[in-house]
Parts: sequence; C-alpha cells; structure tokens
Amino acid sequence: MSSAVSPLAPTDVPEMPQIAGVRLATAAAGIRYKKRTDVLLAVLDPGTSVAGVFTKSKCPSAPVEWCRAKLKGGRARALVVNSGNANAFTGKTGKQSTAQTGAIAAKALGCKQDEVFLASTGVIGEPLDASKFDGVLDKLADEARPDGWMDAAQAIMTTDTFPKVATAQVKLGKAKVTINGIAKGAGMIAPDMATMLAFVFTDAPISPAALQALLKTGVEDSFNAVTIDGDTSTSDTLLAFATGDAAAYGAPKISKASDVRLKAFVKAFNGILANLAEQVARDGEGARKLIEIIVEGAVSKPSARKIAMSIANSPLVKTAVAGEDANWGRVVMAVGKAGEPANRDKLSISFNGIRVAKAGARDPSYNEKEVSAEMKKPEIQIKVSLGLGKGRDRVLTCDLTKEYVAINGDYRS
Amino acid sequence: MSSAVSPLAPTDVPEMPQIAGVRLATAAAGIRYKKRTDVLLAVLDPGTSVAGVFTKSKCPSAPVEWCRAKLKGGRARALVVNSGNANAFTGKTGKQSTAQTGAIAAKALGCKQDEVFLASTGVIGEPLDASKFDGVLDKLADEARPDGWMDAAQAIMTTDTFPKVATAQVKLGKAKVTINGIAKGAGMIAPDMATMLAFVFTDAPISPAALQALLKTGVEDSFNAVTIDGDTSTSDTLLAFATGDAAAYGAPKISKASDVRLKAFVKAFNGILANLAEQVARDGEGARKLIEIIVEGAVSKPSARKIAMSIANSPLVKTAVAGEDANWGRVVMAVGKAGEPANRDKLSISFNGIRVAKAGARDPSYNEKEVSAEMKKPEIQIKVSLGLGKGRDRVLTCDLTKEYVAINGDYRS
Repeated sequence: MSSAVSPLAPTDVPEMPQIAGVRLATAAAGIRYKKRTDVLLAVLDPGTSVAGVFTKSKCPSAPVEWCRAKLKGGRARALVVNSGNANAFTGKTGKQSTAQTGAIAAKALGCKQDEVFLASTGVIGEPLDASKFDGVLDKLADEARPDGWMDAAQAIMTTDTFPKVATAQVKLGKAKVTINGIAKGAGMIAPDMATMLAFVFTDAPISPAALQALLKTGVEDSFNAVTIDGDTSTSDTLLAFATGDAAAYGAPKISKASDVRLKAFVKAFNGILANLAEQVARDGEGARKLIEIIVEGAVSKPSARKIAMSIANSPLVKTAVAGEDANWGRVVMAVGKAGEPANRDKLSISFNGIRVAKAGARDPSYNEKEVSAEMKKPEIQIKVSLGLGKGRDRVLTCDLTKEYVAINGDYRS
Repeated sequence: MSSAVSPLAPTDVPEMPQIAGVRLATAAAGIRYKKRTDVLLAVLDPGTSVAGVFTKSKCPSAPVEWCRAKLKGGRARALVVNSGNANAFTGKTGKQSTAQTGAIAAKALGCKQDEVFLASTGVIGEPLDASKFDGVLDKLADEARPDGWMDAAQAIMTTDTFPKVATAQVKLGKAKVTINGIAKGAGMIAPDMATMLAFVFTDAPISPAALQALLKTGVEDSFNAVTIDGDTSTSDTLLAFATGDAAAYGAPKISKASDVRLKAFVKAFNGILANLAEQVARDGEGARKLIEIIVEGAVSKPSARKIAMSIANSPLVKTAVAGEDANWGRVVMAVGKAGEPANRDKLSISFNGIRVAKAGARDPSYNEKEVSAEMKKPEIQIKVSLGLGKGRDRVLTCDLTKEYVAINGDYRS
C-alpha cells in the first residue's frame, strides 16, 4: 500500500458543513485492516430521495446488484459502506452477505430493507462476513452525528492516499441548501482492484426521479470523463441522497430535473461531481501528473469523447508524459487508433497551450525548450484540434509511472 | 534503447533457406542510427504477386498510403524498407519522400514505380530525406543475393532485442515450395512509436487475388491476435510476395485461395504468420512473461476475441502477471468491462491449467502454492471459460513491467 500522499492532492481541503437530515458514524470492524476505520453508516431522515449510477461491468459486485434493486423504491434511510472487502465475485454467499447486512441495518435503524443502500470496496473473491456488522451498526446508529464528514471519507479509503471531500452551498428558491460529497478512488491492494465509490448528500427537496435525472446527466462529464488505466471495477458506485429537510426552511419541492428553479443547484451539483472525479484522477496509482485532454473540432461530442479516451488510455501517451516529453507522435497514434473521423493533415496538437504540431506535421514555430519547461509541471493539458466539426470533449487522466507498476505488480514480493 | 535480448527470445533460430526469385541486400544509409544497417532492398523476379494488410489507424504513414495505392496492380519487383524514420505525420513532404524513393528504386531495378513497395519504421514527425537512398539503392540492386535473410531481419529492427525470422517448406503439387518471413516488433525509441512490420516471401505460384485472400484470413489469428499495449502504430504493414518461380520445378499455378491443392501451403503460411506474431509478443517492451489468453464458451468467436483483448490490454492483469500473482479478480474485472455477454456465476478461470475460480467464486480446491510456482514461469496461460456457448479465441500478449515504463518514459532523462 502506498503511504505517501499523492503530490497532486488538493492543497485546500474545505470545512465540511452539516446537512440537515444526514448523520454519520464510523467504526473499525476489523474487516481487513488493522487500526483503522472500515465501516461508514450514514443515517438519513425519513423521506430521503435516492438516485444511483453504477459500473457498466457485466460482472458487478453483490452490493451493486443490491442497490440497483432497491433503487426502484426511490427512498433511503441508511447507507452502509465498508472498505477492506468488495464482496465481489463471491457467488451465492455474496448475495447472502448483502441480505444479512441489509437486515442488520434495517433493524438498527428501524426502517425497511428496501431503504438500505450498500457499497463495499476492497479484496474481491473473498466472502464478506456480514456478522461483523452485527452489533456494530446498532452502535453506529446510536452514535451518528451531523458532523464527521472527514472521518466518513477516511473510513471508505482503500489505497487512496488522501480522503476526498467536496462541498457547496447554493440558493434553491429563497433557501440556502448544502451539497456535500465524499469519494474514494482508484487504489488497490493485493489482490484488489480499483474501485470508485462516491456519495453525494443534500438537504434540497428533490424527488427521486429528478435526482436520478440530475445524476445521470452530471456523471457524464465528471466521473465518466475520468480514467486511470481504462480498467473498470466491478463495484463502481455513485449514489446521491436528498433529505428534503430544506423544505422546512423554505426550499421549494422539486419534482422535475428540468425545473428552472434548479439552475444554480444543478451547476453546484455538477461542480461537486467534477471536483470529486478530479480528486480521483489526482490520486491515480503512482500518479505524478494530472493530464487534461481536450479534443475539439471533432464531428460530434461522442466522437470527441472516444478520441479523448483513446489518448487518455494510451500507455504510450501516459508514459511519455511521465517522462516529461511532449510526444505528439504518440498523440497522433492514439487519435488514429480511436477509429473516429480524423484527417491527419488537419490535425493540430498542443501541450499546455504550446502548439507542437499543425496541418499534419511538426509545427516549425515551436520552441523545444519552452515545451520542455511546461512538461515538468504537475498539470499537463493536451489539446487536439481535429478541424472537422464542432464536437468538443474533455477527460482527465494521470501519467503511467513505474510506481503504478510497483503498486499493482510488486505487492507479492 | 534496450540492449539486453528479451528473456523470451526463441532459443532455436532456424537456418533460412533461399527462395527462388528473391534476392536481398542491406546497407547503412545513416538515416538515424550509427554503425548499423538501416535499409533493406528485396529484389523480386518479374511477375511476383503481392498482397498486403495495413494498420487500421485513421492517420497512417506515407509509406502505408503508398503501398495501399500500389497494391491494386498486384505485382512487385522491389521492397524497400528503412528503419530509423517512419515517415509518418510528415505532411506533404512525406508523400514527396515516398514518391522520390519509389522513383529511385524503380530506376535502380529497371521496373515500374507501381511495382515498388515501401515500409518505414522509426521516428515520426521528422521528414525522411529520400535523397539518402540515391546511389544506395543502385548499389544494393547490384549486390542483392539469395541469402542474407538474417541480415535483412536485422536491418529493419528498431528497439527489437532480437531479429525475427521464420521458415517452412511444404509440398505444393509435387514441388517443394519455401516460405520465409521476417518481422520487426513493438519497440520504440524517442520519440518513436511501436510499429510492426512483417514480410513473407514464397516461390509458390499464387495469383495476387489468392495471396490477398490468404493473407487477410491468416492475419486474423496471428498478427491481429497479438497486443503489447493496445496501441496501434500508424505504420503497421504486412506484405506477402509470391515469386512463382516454383512453377519451373512443377508447382501448379494457383489462382484461387480456395484451391484444395493449397491445403498444406495454407497451414504452413499461417504457421509462419503465427510464429512471427508470437516473436513480436516475445519482444514486447520490457516483457518478462509471454501471456496466452484463451477464452472459451463465449457466444461467438468475435465475442471471445473482444473479451480476450480486454484481458490482454488490461494494465491491472498485465501488472499482476508481472508480479507473478494469479489475480483472477482482475481477470473477472476485464471480462466484465468487455461489454460482451458474460454471466458471473458461470465463469471459470485457470492459470497454467490450474482452476482458481469457478461458478462465480473462488475454486475451493486450488492450491495456492502450486499456482504460485506456475506464476514464476516465463509463459503464462490464462484460460477463461464463460459457459455460454461455443465461441473460442486466443490472443497473445506480454506482462507490463517497470521496464516498459522506463523504455517508454525514461528516454528523456
């Protein structure tokens, strides 16, 4: 496990305000780790709306299947997250484990099992002993308090090198509403796999259907626009909870995502998602550089996304950035292999604003020294202009370093 | 540039026989390298059939565009290959350079430009000065001899750690015909990109159309089933040449790929392609282990191929193999992210024949020590049984090591 904090970690960590209707508690249940918390319970006021998006993996974990089924009810009273064991690829025992955890949580909270949401991250293929939650969740339900957001972010970490939190306050009608988010990113320990978990909470009174629509749209340019290594976890989970408590201090009840009164809220909500997603990229295994890839002039936004992802997932581009080389040749390669419309002779490429290639060849005007100095910076922007249309997209990734290989390959030695 | 020979290099290097109608010569033209050959000329008897398959990149190199255009004629008299400069992303000068090289070669051989085939590998984005071929190709045309296959394989290397050759002899009718192949694999030097070049020669009398059909089929389970890092070069080129000289000693003239008399030939031809493709995987940058991925029980062969490629290109699977860990959890992840039909609870996975997971969970019968011993071997087979249908496929790759990152990222320091 990496211990040093990523050099790309945010330097400003916000104070996390309370959110009416949300109480938190954490515990060390000894699921896998020693001497650290590994269970988070979020207790939610009755009537809380819930929305979720999940991994596209065809082999999802048991908790993902649990959440998908429970989402139909649209209401949540509890979120239980454990780190240390992903309860993935655990066969029938995985399903039994989620059922048992759900039952324990429902009993502790005095709610329905359909109002309990679960997420697990950690080792896969090892049965998760749900009896470890017995007693623990009761105690956490008693202890849960409106503060402790940083503790919550810490309890869900695996090999993350820093806890990930984000917050925003915004007007909804005449009321001030709050949005808090926590996330864990792509870290892994033997024999784990990268998993992204994120949970967003607000006191805004938003219907489950509207919240689901907001989340589905919001994820597209945030979590879906981040890649560490192109690998997709069986457990990726993003849940949003809206307690609605702000109705008591004047916030209007929102039933449709298209409601114009939501404008400022949507912007802040998407900002929280983008902020958390960027923090995940900043904590990519072994990452030394954050890479922002902008593709413009594509025939469409989906086409720009595909090309941007092809660049972001190219080991050759990522190792070049690790080597502080503005290797536009590899960018051309990645554009070419994306399979999307591209015309070599119209292609321009710039690194941190310095154009190194234009019209199908090296840009004779660029200064190698100037580019080299830019490439030493911790944040690298690669911009590709295709010159074909108006399609534009942006994705975030990180470089591919020896440390990545060490984290993911050396753990046995 | 790596200098140590890959530990996965073949130990038996065949004696390469002559092929009637093919003469070879190499030279040090000083295109980029010092003190080594960097130009290969293959002189072919009049009437030689040619076939080719190329990179699917949307940004192909100038020589790829040249070859595609010339292929229509179906006849070849010369193949000119240079290493050190790929003549890719060189704009208009790239096209001028291929035209000039074609003209020089045609003059040296006394043939049409349409009978000259070109391939370049090396730096991209730097103009290739075709005047360097002036005089050189004349001299090579004079010197060309029927032997020197190993010299030919050496002249086209970039960061390959060993020359790649393969040969087979087989009956066509009553005549013995010969197939020789040379290849260069995925190596790179600043600021290059991986390129695969392969050239196959035979004295069998096969029409251009039949040869093209054979090549198109043969490449599917050989070169198209090999991946190093999922990145696709702008220059990948596979050309096949059939001089037809074996007609003089009794080989029947073949005009259709479906001709039953070709049966033994097709097997040997595909064997050469598979052999060369495997050597490319064995020389993957930084490779310490050859990984064979077999997917069976898929709904179709294309579905099996997609899943196998998802596993083969997963950095998490490749680093786990580098770490000598039978990490089936990451294999599940790669199956899941492929997007193809898969049922977690029917999935079985084995490493080197030892089943570690079955029916959606860890196989309780497997012996960790036994698996660990297997994982220390240089050749690792990962077999995934999906239990859905009869689709089966096989791809080759190599592990992802710190050495890969060093080769592709450290060159600036």
